[in-house]
This record gives sequence, C-alpha cells and structure tokens, in this order.
Amino acid sequence: MPTGKENAGLTLAQLAEIEELRAARHPTSRATVDALEALLHTPIPVLDHGFLRVVDYMGDDDAVVQAARVSYGRGTRRVSEDAGLIRYLMRHRHSTPFEMCEIKFHVKLPIFVARQWIRHRTANVNEYSARYSILDREFYIPAPEHLAAQSQANRQGRGALLEGAEAEEVLRVLREDATRNYDHYARMLNEDEQGAPVDPARAGLARELARMNLTLNTYTQWYWKTDLHNLMHFLSLRADAHAQYEIRAYAEAMVTCLDAWVPLTAAAFRDYRLGAFTFSGPMLTALRRMLAGEQVTQKGSGLSRREWEEMMTVLERPL
Amino acid sequence: MPTGKENAGLTLAQLAEIEELRAARHPTSRATVDALEALLHTPIPVLDHGFLRVVDYMGDDDAVVQAARVSYGRGTRRVSEDAGLIRYLMRHRHSTPFEMCEIKFHVKLPIFVARQWIRHRTANVNEYSARYSILDREFYIPAPEHLAAQSQANRQGRGALLEGAEAEEVLRVLREDATRNYDHYARMLNEDEQGAPVDPARAGLARELARMNLTLNTYTQWYWKTDLHNLMHFLSLRADAHAQYEIRAYAEAMVTCLDAWVPLTAAAFRDYRLGAFTFSGPMLTALRRMLAGEQVTQKGSGLSRREWEEMMTVLERPL
Amino acid sequence: MPTGKENAGLTLAQLAEIEELRAARHPTSRATVDALEALLHTPIPVLDHGFLRVVDYMGDDDAVVQAARVSYGRGTRRVSEDAGLIRYLMRHRHSTPFEMCEIKFHVKLPIFVARQWIRHRTANVNEYSARYSILDREFYIPAPEHLAAQSQANRQGRGALLEGAEAEEVLRVLREDATRNYDHYARMLNEDEQGAPVDPARAGLARELARMNLTLNTYTQWYWKTDLHNLMHFLSLRADAHAQYEIRAYAEAMVTCLDAWVPLTAAAFRDYRLGAFTFSGPMLTALRRMLAGEQVTQKGSGLSRREWEEMMTVLERPL
Amino acid sequence: MPTGKENAGLTLAQLAEIEELRAARHPTSRATVDALEALLHTPIPVLDHGFLRVVDYMGDDDAVVQAARVSYGRGTRRVSEDAGLIRYLMRHRHSTPFEMCEIKFHVKLPIFVARQWIRHRTANVNEYSARYSILDREFYIPAPEHLAAQSQANRQGRGALLEGAEAEEVLRVLREDATRNYDHYARMLNEDEQGAPVDPARAGLARELARMNLTLNTYTQWYWKTDLHNLMHFLSLRADAHAQYEIRAYAEAMVTCLDAWVPLTAAAFRDYRLGAFTFSGPMLTALRRMLAGEQVTQKGSGLSRREWEEMMTVLERPL
Repeated sequence: MPTGKENAGLTLAQLAEIEELRAARHPTSRATVDALEALLHTPIPVLDHGFLRVVDYMGDDDAVVQAARVSYGRGTRRVSEDAGLIRYLMRHRHSTPFEMCEIKFHVKLPIFVARQWIRHRTANVNEYSARYSILDREFYIPAPEHLAAQSQANRQGRGALLEGAEAEEVLRVLREDATRNYDHYARMLNEDEQGAPVDPARAGLARELARMNLTLNTYTQWYWKTDLHNLMHFLSLRADAHAQYEIRAYAEAMVTCLDAWVPLTAAAFRDYRLGAFTFSGPMLTALRRMLAGEQVTQKGSGLSRREWEEMMTVLERPL
Repeated sequence: MPTGKENAGLTLAQLAEIEELRAARHPTSRATVDALEALLHTPIPVLDHGFLRVVDYMGDDDAVVQAARVSYGRGTRRVSEDAGLIRYLMRHRHSTPFEMCEIKFHVKLPIFVARQWIRHRTANVNEYSARYSILDREFYIPAPEHLAAQSQANRQGRGALLEGAEAEEVLRVLREDATRNYDHYARMLNEDEQGAPVDPARAGLARELARMNLTLNTYTQWYWKTDLHNLMHFLSLRADAHAQYEIRAYAEAMVTCLDAWVPLTAAAFRDYRLGAFTFSGPMLTALRRMLAGEQVTQKGSGLSRREWEEMMTVLERPL
Repeated sequence: MPTGKENAGLTLAQLAEIEELRAARHPTSRATVDALEALLHTPIPVLDHGFLRVVDYMGDDDAVVQAARVSYGRGTRRVSEDAGLIRYLMRHRHSTPFEMCEIKFHVKLPIFVARQWIRHRTANVNEYSARYSILDREFYIPAPEHLAAQSQANRQGRGALLEGAEAEEVLRVLREDATRNYDHYARMLNEDEQGAPVDPARAGLARELARMNLTLNTYTQWYWKTDLHNLMHFLSLRADAHAQYEIRAYAEAMVTCLDAWVPLTAAAFRDYRLGAFTFSGPMLTALRRMLAGEQVTQKGSGLSRREWEEMMTVLERPL
Repeated sequence: MPTGKENAGLTLAQLAEIEELRAARHPTSRATVDALEALLHTPIPVLDHGFLRVVDYMGDDDAVVQAARVSYGRGTRRVSEDAGLIRYLMRHRHSTPFEMCEIKFHVKLPIFVARQWIRHRTANVNEYSARYSILDREFYIPAPEHLAAQSQANRQGRGALLEGAEAEEVLRVLREDATRNYDHYARMLNEDEQGAPVDPARAGLARELARMNLTLNTYTQWYWKTDLHNLMHFLSLRADAHAQYEIRAYAEAMVTCLDAWVPLTAAAFRDYRLGAFTFSGPMLTALRRMLAGEQVTQKGSGLSRREWEEMMTVLERPL
C-alpha cells in the first residue's frame, strides 16, 4: 500500500487522472522533447508531503537558437553550431531568446516556502484559495537531518544540526501546534464534505477568516508558469547553496526538469550561472597582480575582509 | 498613556523618528503636493495593530497631464483643461500617463493579508524577513463586528455576523493559538534581545525554520511602492465591496492618500472605476430593447441568471 | 508563378521549410488543439508584404478552467460547466487563469507598426537586428482604399479617402522615397551577399549607422510571444475600430488564431471586451433615470458633451 | 545668439519654462538630494540635436539602506555602515532595495536609438505621438569622428573611421535623404501651424500615414521613468563599450545623473557592474591552475578560443 511519500499526498483518483493524461498521445506539429514528455504530469516528491510536476511546456533548445538567429540574422552564421550559440547567449546575458520557451508546473508546497517563491514576480500563478476552499490537513515537519541551529557565521541560514532532547522537543512542538491549529480551524469552519454544518447549533466561521489560525508550514498548492530565462534566474538564486533548504529542494527538482527539457541550455546554465563567479573591478586588479607573481594580502588588495574571503574561497587559495 | 491602537504598535523611539522626519523641510524644485505632505510619514492605524503610512511620492496631477501632452502633442490643445484631459485618459484606459507618478508606503499587516496583496506583481516590495530577524509578538484578532459566518449566497465572502458563545469561542481560540504558537516560536529560537541563548543548554532552532510555527494572523511589515496606474488597479479590486474586509481596510486608507495626492485623478477614478459597470454585448442589446420600451425578461434577454441579476442590480430595477 | 502577395514575401526555401514543419507529427501528452494545429506555421498574409503565423502555443480552454479550479477549489463546482466558468472569469476580470496559456507568433511588419506594437510591454520579443544584419528591400505602400486624409472630427485617425491626383502623388512619393533611401542604404553598406565589398575602393558604412537612412515603412520581422490574458488586452486595443488600420490588420489575423485556439474564451472575449462598454457612475445615474421613464438631456445628465455622445451612440439613441 | 547645440533644440519659450521650474523651491519632508536638484530640469545636450534631462526623482542612497534594513532587520546591524551595506547588496544581486528609488527623464533622441532603448521593458514611457502630432524637422547626422566602417572583427559594431570622399558622400546622402523625406512628409500633410491646409486644393494625408515617409534618424522625444535597479541594468548594457555609440552617449549622460543622485550606489555600480567580469565554471578551473603556477594554454583549458580570448584580455595576459 502506498505511503504519503510514495504518492506525494495525491489521492488514488488524482493518480488515475495523471495516468490517463500520461497515456494520451496527441499528434502535434509543435516542437516536442521526448525526455521531458517522459516526465510530463508525474509528480516528483519534494519534502514530506509536497511535489512538483511539469504540466505543460513550449519550445526547446532549437526555439532559443531560432529566436537568436532572427535577432542576429546573417551574423549568427559565424557561430556555426547551436551549442556554441547558446553558450554565447548565456555568457553575454542575451536573455530574450531564452524567453521564447515556457514551462508550467503544478506544485504542492508549505506556505512559508510559497511566501519566498512568490517574490519572483515575472511568472504566472494560480494558487489554491483558502478564501474559497478548505485547505488539506497536511503540514511540513522537517526530517531530523534538516533540523539545524541558527548559523553563528552569518545572520541568515543554518548552523550545526540540532540533536537529542532539543530536536525531539522541536519536532513534537511543530507537530502538535500545527495539528491543534488545524483542528481548531476545522472546528471553527464547522463544515462537512458537502459544506453542511457538522454541528447544526453553530453557524461556522467564514473560510477567509478561519484560515488565519493555520500555521505557516501548512501545505498549499499552485500552478506556476514562467519562461526559460526567468526560470534560470529563479534557479540561480534558489538552487544555490545559500538558499533555504526547503525551497532548494523544489529548485533541485526543477533542475532535473531543465536537464530533460533543454539539455544544451542546461549545460550552459551550469557553466555560466551556477558554477560562475563575478569578480568586481577591485578584485580583478588584485587578481592581475597575483597572476603577475605578486604576493597580495587582503590589506594590500583594498578589498574588504568579506570580499577577500569570498574571492580566495572561490579561487581555492589560503585566506 | 498611549494604547496600541493610538500609536499603531510603534515604539516611542519610532514615533520620535517619524516626528523628526515630518519636521524636516527641504527645498526642492520637484512637484510637491501640500495635502500629501501633511500626511507624509504619519501612520494611519488599520486593524488592531497595523498601519499604513506614505513614506515618499513622485509627481502629481500635473505630471499626468504633462505626460499626456507629450504623447498627444498638439492634439491635446483641444481638451482645454486638465480635469477634462484626466477624465478622458481614465475613460479610454490610456494608462501610461498615470504611470508617471509613484508612491511608496510602509505597511504593517497580517501575513494572510500580505499573501493576497503580493499577488499584484507590478509593484516593488521589501518585506521584513523572518529568515534574518525575529517577528514581533503581535497578531490580528478580528473585532467582534467583523466576525462573520461563511456566506451562503456565494462561495466566497462573509454572511451573517457570528454571535454569542460561538463568537466568544472563536475569539478565544484565535487568541490562544496565536499566542501559544508564538511562545513556542520564541522558545525554539532561544535568543534574547542580543541574540544570546536564553537557555545555554539549548542550541536554538534556526530562524528560517522556527517561523513555520507562526499563525497566518501574525503581523509582518513591508515597504510597498507602485505607480499611480497600478495603485488604482489595486484599489479597484481591493477597495471594492467584494474584497475581504481586512485588505479593504488598507485599501481605504490608501484611497484617503490618493485623494490628498492627486485630487483630479482620484475624482475620475471614482466615476470611471469604483462607481462604474461594464455592460457586455448581450447586456447592451437587452438594454437597448428596454430603453425602446420593450418588456425584457431574463429568459428573453439571453443572459444567464447571474448576469441578469448583476445587471438589474446595478440598474436598480426589479429582478 | 507566385506573387509577393501569395507567398507573403517568403522565399521558396522558406516555404519548403514551413511545409516540412507542418508535415511533422510528433506525439505529445500535452494539451493539443486540432483547429490551431491546422493553422500552425502557415503565414497569413497581412498588408502588401507582411504576414503573421503561429509558431507555437501552450494550453487551451481547459487549461484556463483547470487554473481557475485550483484557485477557487470546491467553490467552482457550482459553476457547472466550462463555458460558464470562462464567462464568469472574463466578466469579473479574473485574469490569472488566462495567463496559463501562451502563444508565439512570427510577424513581418512595417517599422512604424512595430513601434506601436512594442509599447505593449508584457510580451517577449526577438526582432531582426539591423545592427547585425541587412534588412530586405521591402516597404509598405498603402492600397489606394486605405489612403485617407486627416480626420477633422478628432485629432487622431483618418477621414475621407484621398483621391485623384493627390492620391497618385502620395503613392508615387512614398514609393520613390523608400526605394531611393534603400538604394542609398545598400550603396553606403557596400556589401554583397557574402559580405564582401561591392566597390573595393570604399570601406562601407557600419550597418548600425547605415540603417538610419531607411524609412519607417521598411519591413522588419520578429518573434512575439505573449500569454492569453495579455493577448486579449492587446486585441481589445488593436482590433478596435479606433486603432490605426495597419496594426488592426495584424490584430484581425490574430483574432482568427484566437478563435481556432480557444473557442470558449474567444466567444467570451467578444461579448465582454470587444462588444462591451463601461458606464461611469454619472452615466449609470443618467441611465437609471432614463429607464425610469424620465426625459434626460445632456445638460441635465451632468455629463460632458463628449461623454453624452459616447453613451447615446452605444445605446443607439438620438443625440 | 544660441545655436542648436547650445540649447539642445529647445525654443526660447521652453528654455524660459525650464528656468521657471528650476527657480521654484517648494518645501518638502521627502528625501532630497542637493547635487541632483542642481541638475534638475536642465537639458544635457546629447548628439547633434538631442538632450536628456532629469524631470523628477524619488529616494536616495538612504532609501536603499532603509529598505534593506526592513528586509534584513536586526541582521543588518552587523554591516555597520551604509556604504558597506550598499556594496553588499550590489555584490550579491539583492536587487529589491534599489527598486525603492525612481527617476524620470525627458529625452530627445533619434528614432533608431528609441527602437533599441524601448526593448528595456521595465520602465514607463510616454512618447511624442506622430499619429496625433507633427514631428519636428530635425535629424541626427553623425559627426565625422563617429562615421565608421563595419567592423571586420565581429559582426556587430564599428571598425575603422570612414574618411575622405566616402565620408563626404555618406554625410551628404544622409542629410539629403532625411531632408527630402521630411519635406515630402510636410507636403503630404499639407497643414500649416494652425492645422489649416497650406494648399486648399489638397485634402492632406492623415498624420498616421504620412509619418511612414520619415527616416529613422528623425528625432522623437519621450518621458522615460524607471527605478534605480532597472536604470543600472540599462546602464550596464548601454554604457558598455559594446553598445552602439549613439545610445551610449545617452547612457553616459545618465551616469552623470546617477553620480549626483546616489553617490554610494553609483560607486558600487562601477566596481561590481561596469568594471566587473564573470568567470564561468571552466574559466575558474583554468584560473585556479594558473594561480597554482601551471602553464595553461587555450587548448589545455577546454575553453573555446573566443572565451579564452575574453578571459585573457580581462586578465591582461598575453593570448
């Protein structure tokens, strides 16, 4: 029998619907990507009850190339092949050809993750409305290996793992508070499956009010659609090591989809975004001196301590 | 001694800073609006612990006119005066001249209101981050006169007032759950004012994790900046009777600011947006028949029941 | 032998490529619309040398419904069928479900039309670059039936048809000036098909400079991609009778595509946008008085002359 | 007597109006920047007949800091001073605090420059409309020192200076064609200053049609408003050495305004954007090997020739 993790919290009816969508094969004259078709509709489990699934897409690596060639016309003949052209576009931040591709995800995610995610404004969103509908009884409880103390090194992010009695208490509190608040939410609503009162003696609180009692780890869901350029911008921030683990888990599932969808673009994205580093003017000056054989210190470089450390870390040099 | 309501939850230090900002008078050659200067920086209380205050602005009614005249050049000479030109622009949805003005608010608001608000993407936002900082111990608890049952007429919105024991229970639950969850949040953080551990035996949970235990009525705050066109689009949706009361309370405070800032535009906005109604093609056909003296029924009109009711309601005719 | 009009200025090689694209049939599990597949890739001729063709699309009427149902959840069960839900969304300007569909066009159009078009910012564009490449020797010359005098009624738009010697002179001047300027452009460039100098004694002017000698009726081309909501916003302005004929010709070709793509949405769009009219608050007051049997005059209505005329025209009542 | 260059093509009436605006000093409680007030309203001449002038602004360096502190709350106390915080935000591409400032320019520019400029979509624009109004008789003719041949090194940009008879011919052709086309435009319009026909025997062509005879170096004008983040994005592309000279001339005038407006942000912008370089993952690998004393060749680096050259150029190393 499937556990919550295996079917990402989907009902059997929903799983059957997904199977039906996957089985359908319509002929089209549009660009089609077999590797992404293989992923289409299927939920990729994320966190304890969440998922991410590709619901639709438009375009492929060729669409990027085609758009670049209309822009640069005869000029692009020189860049003889597609991979080279895509790498050139990525390197020089020519973003408009990447805007010609579009992808749509269905995502189930905790509300506090949704609040970070929605700050990316250049996307289209339809979220499940707790004003109109009743949210499901599902909350995110971190796995023990993701329960960390506040970082002491910087003011954001996580430090050492929380362990022992403290970890147990945290997990218990998170679970109890979310559960109790949901139960109170349900009681205040006073609605059964058909919307009829559970307790006929009470009127029931309006949904748009009752929802305020829920905790921020309650799961919500949405359709989220964006173009390839903005997807990569999102991923460069959220698939990064500095991103909060919970949103990074979704970003990593999206990188898997990116690889299947546009392999040439995904490879260029790794080289020029995820694995890249920008040197400021003063950093370049220090770098040139180092390459000329000079011994350069942080003080001598004119860089702040923090900048110096960032640069030396990326260069794999001793601080 | 000031209550929370009087100073909108601001500390004495913050109030003193606001007084200082208000007292400062810098000379400028920019367009300046005295009626808005009078409101500048001062928090307008909203809900039980929230506020909204204008922090900065750019442009005025003249800036709208000036932009329209550069667009339409000599053509605008015919529309002899400014009010007429502004009404013309509003009526014909020529939105770009209104984009030439900008306003910036500082807002303190419950998280569930922030979640509705952020769906308007054409604005600039900087929100207090619970990843970096610790949220204050303040939650929205509705006043008894805003505690309503779910509407039976439509699937959104509120119906009759909740009263008696049920109302008392709801208020008690909302207060207890928010308070308990906040206290557990604080305990899991294990940080005092200086960021040192309260209980040295515990490591403290990372802020970015602990926040998930908070309820959706916890207050957050942000700077929110938008242009006059997008502000009016926001207000046409959120100052409307169909908007949830809690966000409408903020929208109404913003309408007060709009009146002070751009009086000609605000008047046109009331006539052509807030007080307007769009008739569809089939509605116009029915209307023409009615004006010609014909007796038109819902069935005879070809309109759906719902459309018919919407039209007859706005026309103040019997259904 | 095909004329320019028949193949919309496309070369035989381009036509063959289009045939190949159309013949390809890939299986997909994505939503597919047969009526739009039938139009896919094929250029629809517009103006004398222009065209518009659908190159890709994503989603259909069902995708709009699906997005609305995730937003409104159980609440949407009441609106029993899809057409009714789409009409409801359109009427109440719930725009986000329409943003879930996307369409991409390849367009060949005169530069002065492109300049109007690009003012719509919520779209993705890749235009042929005259900085990198050499524009083709094609200009828009209006058909005699579109050669109109300046309107006397308003300061924009066209009035009576231009005829006789004046029309002949205008057409001759437009043709001669565009041709001469193009020939000088080509001479200044001094490049043959391979980019080698035609006249080895001259260096040739940089493309980015030479292009400034071209006239605004020179044809350019671009890929233009937008979502269904923004497409309809574009069409509500540009398929309107007040739009300049030359851009309206493109908008009308797009309406054809809209009909094939999302028939339910297209029907609602005609009723609630193209054929609709918004009554301001003061107009509604006058209307209610008229429906109550009162004789209302422009003066008595409090409306400006212009507003009165707009209202009476749409109501088909005598001024 | 002033020449066109001295007053940037403005009439005496316009210059008087500007003087009046500059002389006005209104008291305000908003943030005010004296160095930018000194530039306010005054046209900075650009190219032969163009200009750029700051018409309004909102915010300053402090507004960036204030927005960052609301976002990062107590966390920002560690970054003790404002310059350091601004540099941190710029380095880590935290863009939202920079969106809290806004600036509005009035610009007169050739149409082909406007066409490049408008591709930046995150701005507000009101352009002089040749549909409603008649354009002035002014065209851009490059100064002899900007008349360059097509670059042979890459497919965009300019190469060696054009000289002698060829340069003379180009300048003559540009001047003659623009002038003739404008004269024909005016003749087709057949309107005098008051809009009455010059030749009563002709009806005159509609403005929206006649404009198509103009050349792309004709001057237009617009109001252009954007936030500080998007302004810097624009400048990072258009104040760059790869940008076409004609748009770069405007960008450089805007950098002057940036320096006056937000000196801390402008300094960080120079270090982290204008003077910066992004190393890809493979470039970083090569760089680490070079710093470790290894002799690295292009072939050995795995980089393409073009990437290798870009990197070695920025490092000031032999190719």
